[in-house]
Amino acid sequence: MTAALPAIVIQEVAPRDGLQIEPKWVGTPDKIKLIDSLSAIGFARIEVSSFVSPAAVPSLRDAAEVFAGITRRPGTVYTALIPNRRGAELALAARADELNFVMSASETHNRANMNMTHARSLASLAEISGPAHEAGALLNATVATAFGCPFEGAQPINKVLDIVSRYLALGADGITLADTTGMANPNQVSQLVARTLLLVPADKLTLHFHNTRGLGLVNVLAAHDAGARRFDAALGGLGGCPFAPGATGNVCTEDLVNLCQEMGLATGLDLRGLIDVSCRLTGLVGHDVPGQVAKAGPASDLHPLPERLRHSG
Amino acid sequence: MTAALPAIVIQEVAPRDGLQIEPKWVGTPDKIKLIDSLSAIGFARIEVSSFVSPAAVPSLRDAAEVFAGITRRPGTVYTALIPNRRGAELALAARADELNFVMSASETHNRANMNMTHARSLASLAEISGPAHEAGALLNATVATAFGCPFEGAQPINKVLDIVSRYLALGADGITLADTTGMANPNQVSQLVARTLLLVPADKLTLHFHNTRGLGLVNVLAAHDAGARRFDAALGGLGGCPFAPGATGNVCTEDLVNLCQEMGLATGLDLRGLIDVSCRLTGLVGHDVPGQVAKAGPASDLHPLPERLRHSG
Repeated sequence: MTAALPAIVIQEVAPRDGLQIEPKWVGTPDKIKLIDSLSAIGFARIEVSSFVSPAAVPSLRDAAEVFAGITRRPGTVYTALIPNRRGAELALAARADELNFVMSASETHNRANMNMTHARSLASLAEISGPAHEAGALLNATVATAFGCPFEGAQPINKVLDIVSRYLALGADGITLADTTGMANPNQVSQLVARTLLLVPADKLTLHFHNTRGLGLVNVLAAHDAGARRFDAALGGLGGCPFAPGATGNVCTEDLVNLCQEMGLATGLDLRGLIDVSCRLTGLVGHDVPGQVAKAGPASDLHPLPERLRHSG
Repeated sequence: MTAALPAIVIQEVAPRDGLQIEPKWVGTPDKIKLIDSLSAIGFARIEVSSFVSPAAVPSLRDAAEVFAGITRRPGTVYTALIPNRRGAELALAARADELNFVMSASETHNRANMNMTHARSLASLAEISGPAHEAGALLNATVATAFGCPFEGAQPINKVLDIVSRYLALGADGITLADTTGMANPNQVSQLVARTLLLVPADKLTLHFHNTRGLGLVNVLAAHDAGARRFDAALGGLGGCPFAPGATGNVCTEDLVNLCQEMGLATGLDLRGLIDVSCRLTGLVGHDVPGQVAKAGPASDLHPLPERLRHSG
């Protein structure tokens, strides 16, 4: 029996993009338990952690221990974010199934975020590609700030496409376009996705949206209408933005699954199971999380009649 | 000089749909000040309050005083929600420009919410129509739970259209389709809007969405794509759902204006002015509000470079 390919592939990034910004330390056993719960739900891909400077992202300094502790579900790709060769070596040593290399379309943002020029980042990618493939790992390459940079503003579409082409030439197996600080709008998404799909097949292209200005799901639908099929999302909508205190984070996984379910788009993911895990997040991170469906319940959940109507005929 | 008709008409409902569920009493002078601020921004329509049982909705028991205290901007329609003839009489006495009659598509919800059968509600509308028009007021009629009822579930499209036809036959000047508890999805919205526009011209049809499950803006765009042009929204995304504690409320006005601005759709509303008023809501209601753009800023706001990059060439 072969499982049908879902209409939309949702990839879970809460353990990495969600937890990286949390001020409260989430213990390694709790991280492992969260990832194991996500594995049990059956995600095709889970971004486990990142191998970056522990000084820059102290909340993920236990990346190697987390990789060592998780139970790997056959069929799930366990990914590690990496910015450079050193990160790649550590991720391969931790037996990551996939390296997710990140560089920002905006060089200003790349320098602010990674302390690297474009030339330096691309040179790292060139060094990483061979060892990754020799180790049997996949290599995904992300264009961060693809839909706008908080310092530079809008990024020219040809600049983003040029980076995608360079990534492919340097051996990337998959491409992610990331709206790092939630600046995308649906018109722009339609255009960039349509142009990128001329370079990258839909099963190799991931869209990564943040809900910073409430447009996460709007942009997912615009990308889907333009032909995209793979989307990153974070349970509970975890993952903030350093430039927008109080703003929401990534597109919320269970909100997206509820939307897909209401629209008849198969995701292969169990909404009740997701909500169960999501409801434990508040205890884990110590604050309310932005996801809505975990609070309101799926649209299909009906409520009992008010008492006075139950006996009045 | 004639102002261009906006591509999207956004109608503000925070003073009514937003404040009606707030547990903290918002004083009459504060309500008046909020409405005057909204008038200054230039909304075409503001839902000021409702004339319902003060026992059922104590937070709006000062409806008459609020209508008496606001400064009316020429060109803005000041609306009062009413469930029945008594409410209509009070609203006309308060010189409401428009009565917004409400009945739920779901008879169960209508009985739970208004304590009236469909027959009784429609008889009220028949009684209201003449006096409203004789007084020079407009009469809008809302189909609540048009996209689903929390007790009955989905509502048949023909049932909703039948109610719309009855409203029109009874003299309604405008029609609102309301997603009272945030159950709508974009496929359903497209279908119902397209069918309704065969009965009601776009300039007389309002869509009223709640963001209970994060789909408010998704549904606005689906309705817009299907030809709808008038939308209710609430500043700050005020307005909860009694069945979903912690869930968000109405579509957030400033988040919708930001989306329109990013997509090049004119609303005629000033986003900065909206954000300024929205930022005062937390003090008014005593808790954080769900709107995102007031926290994150418009997507077009750029941030200064980090200090270490400013001098390093």
